[in-house]
Amino acid sequence: MDVTITGVDVHDVRFPTAASGDGSDAINRGDYSATYVQLTTDAGPAGAGFTFTNGRGNELTCAAVRALAHHVVGRTVAQIAAEPVAFWRSLVADEQLRWLGPEKGVIHMATGALVNAVWDLRATLAGKPLWRYLADLPTDDLVASVDFRHISDALTPDDAATILDKGLVGRDQRLADLERDGFPAYTTSVGWLGYPDDRVRELTRAAYDAGWRAVKMKVGGPLADDLRRARLIRAEIGPDALLMMDANQVWDVDEAITAMTALAEVDPYWIEEPTHADDILGHARIARAVAELTGGRCRVATGEVAANRVVFKQLLQAEAIGVMQVDACRVGGVDEVLAELLLAAKFGVPVCPHAGGVGLCEYVQHLAIFDYLRVGTSLDGRMVEYVDHLHEHFVDPVRIRDGRYLLPERPGYSATMRPESIARFRFPDGPAWR
Amino acid sequence: MDVTITGVDVHDVRFPTAASGDGSDAINRGDYSATYVQLTTDAGPAGAGFTFTNGRGNELTCAAVRALAHHVVGRTVAQIAAEPVAFWRSLVADEQLRWLGPEKGVIHMATGALVNAVWDLRATLAGKPLWRYLADLPTDDLVASVDFRHISDALTPDDAATILDKGLVGRDQRLADLERDGFPAYTTSVGWLGYPDDRVRELTRAAYDAGWRAVKMKVGGPLADDLRRARLIRAEIGPDALLMMDANQVWDVDEAITAMTALAEVDPYWIEEPTHADDILGHARIARAVAELTGGRCRVATGEVAANRVVFKQLLQAEAIGVMQVDACRVGGVDEVLAELLLAAKFGVPVCPHAGGVGLCEYVQHLAIFDYLRVGTSLDGRMVEYVDHLHEHFVDPVRIRDGRYLLPERPGYSATMRPESIARFRFPDGPAWR
Repeated sequence: MDVTITGVDVHDVRFPTAASGDGSDAINRGDYSATYVQLTTDAGPAGAGFTFTNGRGNELTCAAVRALAHHVVGRTVAQIAAEPVAFWRSLVADEQLRWLGPEKGVIHMATGALVNAVWDLRATLAGKPLWRYLADLPTDDLVASVDFRHISDALTPDDAATILDKGLVGRDQRLADLERDGFPAYTTSVGWLGYPDDRVRELTRAAYDAGWRAVKMKVGGPLADDLRRARLIRAEIGPDALLMMDANQVWDVDEAITAMTALAEVDPYWIEEPTHADDILGHARIARAVAELTGGRCRVATGEVAANRVVFKQLLQAEAIGVMQVDACRVGGVDEVLAELLLAAKFGVPVCPHAGGVGLCEYVQHLAIFDYLRVGTSLDGRMVEYVDHLHEHFVDPVRIRDGRYLLPERPGYSATMRPESIARFRFPDGPAWR
Repeated sequence: MDVTITGVDVHDVRFPTAASGDGSDAINRGDYSATYVQLTTDAGPAGAGFTFTNGRGNELTCAAVRALAHHVVGRTVAQIAAEPVAFWRSLVADEQLRWLGPEKGVIHMATGALVNAVWDLRATLAGKPLWRYLADLPTDDLVASVDFRHISDALTPDDAATILDKGLVGRDQRLADLERDGFPAYTTSVGWLGYPDDRVRELTRAAYDAGWRAVKMKVGGPLADDLRRARLIRAEIGPDALLMMDANQVWDVDEAITAMTALAEVDPYWIEEPTHADDILGHARIARAVAELTGGRCRVATGEVAANRVVFKQLLQAEAIGVMQVDACRVGGVDEVLAELLLAAKFGVPVCPHAGGVGLCEYVQHLAIFDYLRVGTSLDGRMVEYVDHLHEHFVDPVRIRDGRYLLPERPGYSATMRPESIARFRFPDGPAWR
């Protein structure tokens, strides 16, 4: 029986994290927030999705959801599943709203919230967690979900089908491995710029004791401070654990190369967002320099604010990244992430999704698991970011054991927030903000 | 005497142009709109600025102006002029709002409206049209207005100073030439996709008779239709006039090359937006192909939705464009346009600003004139777009004679709308919309 989407509700939910320094880095100091979307239907089950924002301005993505909602309301799930690209383009190629992007920023993040809510609904109706729903879809249905417009010079429908068919081989064994061990992860909770050295040392030690063997620190402050903190963390985790660094775009291209020349001393595994997120050619230059500095040990990573699949396409074409950090809701939802996973597989670059914020860990675990089962088919160099914040607000929070994500089991995309959290943190009228 | 900015008013002004097919192209069919900003001051003179949008969603850029306004209110004009980059960064690097871009889409367009309003105020207080105010600024003041962050690998403050100092030589003669002849222009009013062939023929003939020797048509429909219309226009304007084409991003990279292989027959002067605006590497491939197809006669042009100076930097570094089409309010206002004009000069690429819409012609004439006087210092390959729509709503509308812009004479940035137009077209409560 088909289900009609009868309404879109959107809530401006903000958590007051800025005051504590959680999530602070070289350029952000945020009140982690969600533009939270609930789809109502004529058949009971509802869909939930959100896009993550950094506090102020969450009202803009909420308003953008309202501006786009008429493309969603009145459709049936069967219609959307039958013509996914037509549905997706109704959102991203609206003949008036497209001007506000195109396919980037506020309008595209709102698209992501809506599209993800539709996938949550689809998986919920199928009675499967999203990762399993996607992994069970026939190759043709997955290929039909990808808009190849503007990426066909790098990835064709035939390329996609070949990758996804190949992903059927050995899938059950890979699933059994994940069910036994969980999915590899790393933690970003140890080294926010807002934390003093003692806290960084204490958190690093606690993380190591909890089983983490890959940790990420923020850089981009004064270089001497970055180096001191990096040495401190390296001393705690020993020479074998992985230490990643994240500059959050603060450097110019030449500054990034200079900084990494010094920071190479602590054997970083990757440098994330070394310069402006739009600078594909700059990332390529930094990647070449860093590879030379470290004998190929350190790679460039980016993606959390890469605007769309066209940007990812070029990062891969230019050999600018050795790690692709897709985000679940910066881009236009599951359909576009699917394009990005396929591009990464085509170019042989591992995907390590961006998480943290609010609800991003809940989202991206599904994407990484699906990627392993059907697209990338390897755990080599694959890790999902983990930040230990705000999971308590979700109905189906992530579960971590020994530094690995356990497979989500409930139907849907793990995007549903607890009603009491929405009520308490709704901005500006929830009790937490009054 | 210093002037304090005491308030920011924003109006959602929309003109119902979609119904007539004006402004229709391969992907847009818009109700030309303005997110119109008025700065109030404690000293009488006010500043006006706007960003252009395509109708639906104009409420989002209006809301973004409100979200950013606290960075503007309470400042004095002298403070801003003394530390322009600090002011600009308060808008584009807000530690929470930046996440919604960064420096792109809704939030950046709103920044453009506010920053332009400040420049309108500055020029008004100085009693000069903006082009003259800018052209008279000392090199040091102009250099100090540019945020070199993320472009220093392509343009340094020393580079900028060298270009601007060189621009002082011969400036008076160039100004005398412009005062006599006006600034070269081309018209885009002849070939919107929404117009039937007869109307295209009639408009082309009228344009030619009015002195236009450079016209632009929209392409990106069925190739046979594009070619038929192109032949029709070429037949009307003869072999010597320039015919430009604009695909508004509808093609994939390989489609663009295929289409231009056919359209080369009519000797196009440029192909504008041949593919997705974010595709720097794609534009570079198309540029190489088109140059080869036409023996270097046809070039690639883009810019009207290029998100920011980092994108323009790369388009130039990659030799992807032979014409740079800066937009006055897509990017973060005059300060960022200044960076883009300097980048174009550094790389030797002519600037032909994007106009049309509502008020864009009024804005960009100032930029092109300043560019000629102090930066690019040549008219070779320089033209300002002209579309004959909606000028009647401005207090200081453009003046065209024999296909050229006459120099604006009133103080300010020509951005002030007539109060009766704002009242009539205010959305949704103005009489035009009720």
